[in-house]
Amino acid sequence: MKEIKVNALSPYSVIVTSTNSQLNFWLEHKKLNRLFVITDDNVDLLYGDYFNSIKSKIIGKYVLKAGEESKKIETVLDIYRCLLKHNIDRKCTILAFGGGVVGDITGFVASTFKRGTNLVYIPTTLIAQTDSSVGGKNGFNLDGIKNVIGTFYQPSLVYVDVNLLKTLDADNFKNGMAEVIKYGFVLDDNLFRYIEQNKRAILEREIDKLKYIVAECIKLKAAVVEKDELDLGGRHILNFGHTIGHALETISNFKIMHGEAVALGMVYESYIALKRNLIDQDLLERLIKILKYFDLQTTADIENYNDFKQAILKDKKNVDSLLKIVLPVGLGRAIITTDVKVDTIIQNMKELSRR
Amino acid sequence: MKEIKVNALSPYSVIVTSTNSQLNFWLEHKKLNRLFVITDDNVDLLYGDYFNSIKSKIIGKYVLKAGEESKKIETVLDIYRCLLKHNIDRKCTILAFGGGVVGDITGFVASTFKRGTNLVYIPTTLIAQTDSSVGGKNGFNLDGIKNVIGTFYQPSLVYVDVNLLKTLDADNFKNGMAEVIKYGFVLDDNLFRYIEQNKRAILEREIDKLKYIVAECIKLKAAVVEKDELDLGGRHILNFGHTIGHALETISNFKIMHGEAVALGMVYESYIALKRNLIDQDLLERLIKILKYFDLQTTADIENYNDFKQAILKDKKNVDSLLKIVLPVGLGRAIITTDVKVDTIIQNMKELSRR
Repeated sequence: MKEIKVNALSPYSVIVTSTNSQLNFWLEHKKLNRLFVITDDNVDLLYGDYFNSIKSKIIGKYVLKAGEESKKIETVLDIYRCLLKHNIDRKCTILAFGGGVVGDITGFVASTFKRGTNLVYIPTTLIAQTDSSVGGKNGFNLDGIKNVIGTFYQPSLVYVDVNLLKTLDADNFKNGMAEVIKYGFVLDDNLFRYIEQNKRAILEREIDKLKYIVAECIKLKAAVVEKDELDLGGRHILNFGHTIGHALETISNFKIMHGEAVALGMVYESYIALKRNLIDQDLLERLIKILKYFDLQTTADIENYNDFKQAILKDKKNVDSLLKIVLPVGLGRAIITTDVKVDTIIQNMKELSRR
Repeated sequence: MKEIKVNALSPYSVIVTSTNSQLNFWLEHKKLNRLFVITDDNVDLLYGDYFNSIKSKIIGKYVLKAGEESKKIETVLDIYRCLLKHNIDRKCTILAFGGGVVGDITGFVASTFKRGTNLVYIPTTLIAQTDSSVGGKNGFNLDGIKNVIGTFYQPSLVYVDVNLLKTLDADNFKNGMAEVIKYGFVLDDNLFRYIEQNKRAILEREIDKLKYIVAECIKLKAAVVEKDELDLGGRHILNFGHTIGHALETISNFKIMHGEAVALGMVYESYIALKRNLIDQDLLERLIKILKYFDLQTTADIENYNDFKQAILKDKKNVDSLLKIVLPVGLGRAIITTDVKVDTIIQNMKELSRR
């Protein structure tokens, strides 16, 4: 068991473990005694008995339909009404038990119901464990615009049980691995080498290996968000692969998964770095090799570069119309720049696709 | 002009003035250059030209229907869509120009749109100027439950122009005076005496007198909220008159105004204090006299004390079923207690009504 402290404006702990048996201890420790669980139907089917040993603390449960489609205002309102029915007050704790969608919706609900209840995350996917449950961001989609409504709201506790990853489907596992590789590639050369050296054991989901990479990613994320809690600049380093990736996700109408899009984005953005002599050919090849090992695609078939151009220019992360992009500069380091023109990006992408 | 600094987690300034001519200076000073205005149809009719001198900074405007009825999710969603249409980003500033309803809705929108834009309040009613625009609370109603959804979110600037009070209708003026008297009665004996001594000039809305009482209330509110930003206990002192007042408001189906209900609540709660020898008869009489001077009722006709009992027990401020009540202990001081039984409250109310 590892405890990682996140020094946000309201500090909190992330517990990394491989069992649910320490949950009661941590809830008692944080004085969280009355819980309302929000989960999705997939997780509920697999782990309906996860809270059996703390039954007396559970006031109620809301099960939403799994999938991005649930990230809408109608779900939020339905949950509010369910909380009212259960007489949930500000001293209660709302617990998110699921992946990114459950976490995003639950975080928003907890931050707005009666102006804020306690919040606990128990993330069940690799991407939620390593990325979305630390940082305090939540949100839902409106009129097809992703995460356009949301808040920054810190949990009281994040309880990461890597044993939950044993049942994760292959697509969601590789989706998470894209983000894990990203952390190593731009923030921590040791983590990247560890993934290269232990790739088989990770793919086979050996508990100790999972615990190590998950804990390392959380530490890296915590260090970045502590410096930029409200996402005003410094956090942008985590968007490596996302400038191009997010646009690819958009033009596919979100048919490709977030992690797959990020994997593609990382390759293209690294190629731009290579063209600028910021990294060498060998490093790009190592990135491509490890992504392929985890069954992630490394080139995209783009039918219409005009659609891509529209999408990349519309990204909500662009403020004052400047296109921000993260470029690696050697292993484990990266810079944020706004001086890459969108036409250069497209030209480089075409070039790489032809190779 | 007075500048009052509020030391919240994100500190901000409240400017108390009697002209709109300093607005541009303060917006420049705070680097707030692109504004989207949210107001209501009453204010818009009277003050449609208020921002004429800073026209170039205004990107757009949303006018909601005046009244509590607008404090609902449908209004919030309609505003989100309007902001999207105007391409509002996180660096823009959303400006609330109106009373409590406009402030509550705008604060919520600003705190949730793209996870938070800048926010400026220009309150136009006495109650918004002295109370609701400082403290960071916002919210809307759901299924008839007042302010049940909301956040804590601090503005970048509050610009209080008491000249706007010149056109305030008599009902809204006395509604605000109830809160002003409350501040003096439980927090500041000097302010209470000032109101007694200058009551005529205040009623006639002399600018200097308004500026003084508004600034004093803001200072008092700021001092209280600085110590309890998230409303976890200390802020409760501001709920003097509200335990009983809020229940009276509820059983009238919100036909009596908030300030009128608070005035009644203050009298009844002070009578409880008198019965406990916490204050003397003379102080109660002074409270009643000043409330009457400002045309506020001091006894209520309660038809059904059972409804009242239900309402007071359901108040969202009660945590763990304990009824919290604020009792004055001499002029300018008060205590928070949970040891007054609801039946004692009702018995005392009946007693006072019979006198």
